[in-house]
Amino acid sequence: MAYSPLIQELLDALRCLPGVGPRSAQRIALHLLQRDRGGGERLARALEAAMKRVGRCTQCRLPTEETVCELCRNDKREQSVLCVVESPSDVFALEQATDYGGRYFVLLGRLSPLDGIGPADVGLDELERQLAGGEIREVILAVSPTVEGEATARYVADIAAEQGVSCSRIAHGVPVGGELEFVDSGTLSHAFAGRRSFR
Amino acid sequence: MAYSPLIQELLDALRCLPGVGPRSAQRIALHLLQRDRGGGERLARALEAAMKRVGRCTQCRLPTEETVCELCRNDKREQSVLCVVESPSDVFALEQATDYGGRYFVLLGRLSPLDGIGPADVGLDELERQLAGGEIREVILAVSPTVEGEATARYVADIAAEQGVSCSRIAHGVPVGGELEFVDSGTLSHAFAGRRSFR
Repeated sequence: MAYSPLIQELLDALRCLPGVGPRSAQRIALHLLQRDRGGGERLARALEAAMKRVGRCTQCRLPTEETVCELCRNDKREQSVLCVVESPSDVFALEQATDYGGRYFVLLGRLSPLDGIGPADVGLDELERQLAGGEIREVILAVSPTVEGEATARYVADIAAEQGVSCSRIAHGVPVGGELEFVDSGTLSHAFAGRRSFR
Repeated sequence: MAYSPLIQELLDALRCLPGVGPRSAQRIALHLLQRDRGGGERLARALEAAMKRVGRCTQCRLPTEETVCELCRNDKREQSVLCVVESPSDVFALEQATDYGGRYFVLLGRLSPLDGIGPADVGLDELERQLAGGEIREVILAVSPTVEGEATARYVADIAAEQGVSCSRIAHGVPVGGELEFVDSGTLSHAFAGRRSFR
């Protein structure tokens, strides 16, 4: 006893979604078939168009179907400051939380030589070219404080120094609203070492 | 600052999936774009084919792209027993858990006059026609013990009685392995009233 071929293929294909196992796939497929065929057809069209036509912005590597993304085309933004992030969602998080008005560079990954992910795989060669261009005066590192993030930060700081570009990194410490006793020891030691004068 | 049009349309379309909000949609879209374009394209094709071509089995109402589903075509199954369930996933649950070898009838919903869901909306007219056909000798009710499920069970029992077809209902009670003190009072009173002789 099995589902019909088209339904079985849909169940298998749904497994490509992150976190979707056999039971969720069944729930999603039956929901769409019984209650939302229009939504399912729209999703099929949107998926096909996005998978085939979305590439990367040639300047900042943000996923987009355009050659240069909206953010990089916006000449009201400060062209001399470049914020380096790991993922597109970091760009949106920073845009929502801060009034940063410069440009971005999206690595789409983290430097991880042990996994065979070298500088060119995360666009660090392109970043080096942009820094060599002379227009950028400051690089802001907004990468995660993980092992790979640290390696990436170190690498970017080195190429920035070679090009005479100043380089800063966003602060890591106790989250605002967090209580000390619930903060992990790594964060606490980071925050303690990174203390600043206060009065 | 916004995602490009194709990505935004994908984010909106993903919201038709049950339980997917703005953040999950972003996570799914970026995962597919960065790591699994092939999976995304396969899902697009599977969704389109299933949404356009999957209908219902004309006999048991199970979703299928065929006129009569594999289960109903199988003439090794007992044709005189019909098990009535609410959803296609119930059929698969029963097939896995029991050695039931008869036919099924899938309501695809529950009788709920207050919501405007009458007998014809859940296929009870078709069920009545099949019972009138004379081939079916027993109906097994495997609907949920909810208010709507009770109304559905009552309705099916009535039409079965009219046609002189015997009708039984699967047992409700304390789950196997469950401890009495953690069982809700409705289930416990059901189980108590439905006690059977034992020695």
